[in-house]
Amino acid sequence: MAPKYKLTYFNTRGLGEPIRYMLAYGDIDYEDIRISFEEWPKLKADSPYGLMPFIEINGKVINQSTSICRYFAKQLDLAGKDEFEALQIDATADTIADLRHTIGDYWWRSEEKDKPKKREILVNETIPKYLSRFEKQVQDNNGYFVNGKLSYADLYLAANVEYLSAVMKSNILDGYPNLKALVEKVDNIPKIKAWINKRPQSYY
Amino acid sequence: MAPKYKLTYFNTRGLGEPIRYMLAYGDIDYEDIRISFEEWPKLKADSPYGLMPFIEINGKVINQSTSICRYFAKQLDLAGKDEFEALQIDATADTIADLRHTIGDYWWRSEEKDKPKKREILVNETIPKYLSRFEKQVQDNNGYFVNGKLSYADLYLAANVEYLSAVMKSNILDGYPNLKALVEKVDNIPKIKAWINKRPQSYY
Repeated sequence: MAPKYKLTYFNTRGLGEPIRYMLAYGDIDYEDIRISFEEWPKLKADSPYGLMPFIEINGKVINQSTSICRYFAKQLDLAGKDEFEALQIDATADTIADLRHTIGDYWWRSEEKDKPKKREILVNETIPKYLSRFEKQVQDNNGYFVNGKLSYADLYLAANVEYLSAVMKSNILDGYPNLKALVEKVDNIPKIKAWINKRPQSYY
Repeated sequence: MAPKYKLTYFNTRGLGEPIRYMLAYGDIDYEDIRISFEEWPKLKADSPYGLMPFIEINGKVINQSTSICRYFAKQLDLAGKDEFEALQIDATADTIADLRHTIGDYWWRSEEKDKPKKREILVNETIPKYLSRFEKQVQDNNGYFVNGKLSYADLYLAANVEYLSAVMKSNILDGYPNLKALVEKVDNIPKIKAWINKRPQSYY
């Protein structure tokens, strides 16, 4: 039987990997369509909002990576046991997305001449501001982001770390032992580990 | 009895107004705390992630405006009748947030010398790219963003239009009759209308 889901993204981790982590964790069958940087301009006009990743579900094409993660997280019991827990998980994922967005702005949407100054602000201010608060949140919540148990916010961080570290050219979690331990825990979940071992190689 | 919720933001619409729309629509009692631009630096360090808006619920302080909107939307039956509908509503709100973020980057986080060029790209490319697709989505869904009925995505757009139009110094919905009609419909919901009539004045 054909897979129910078709995920389309570049052949990179980037914004696609958090969705792929959810699908791997849930052992959900899908078609992992990877578009080269050269092919993308031809497909862009017909894609929803001209952006990837997007996913086809029930014949409908949907964009927005965090929303797609949440959709699968609900099926996998990773989105909160009640509305208040869901809010805390959602807010955490959105804050991780904010950090990613800021680093992505620097890397993909800045002029070369502005990059050294922007990098300095990221390294000395922005990244420590986010990560020190994430570190405290995980420390206060018994090794996870919310209420001492696994949620999609944890997978969301783990799936973003390599991409962000590649862009910053150093492990962004150095100096944050609770975050490192959390990511290691997520990446050692057998189904996530199997995915990491079999996924296509990519730099970002 | 003291209100259960304390919302803290600047005395502007901006990122606070979508939450205030949800609270107004649901007739939910809350404390609408407004911080001046002068006071904010003193409070910033102790706030979650150094950003507003944030809300106190059950004694916990939570940030992230879209997540907070979704939390109330679920209570108000504005977040989807099933998970697939919820996904479409969430993705729409996130895409509106992307547009807002891009306009916000131009206005709040650009150097003056770069603004004319950035404004030109926004007016000629970015804003039409988003709004023409929103227009089609609303046209295809019988006057609402998703499945022909009111959702928090509709309130989310309506609550953002004045702020974005103020920044762009023109009504961003000119030329998009379906979006204009949708916003008018939302703003004429009696409880929203009452809120618009009584809220503090602000430029943004």
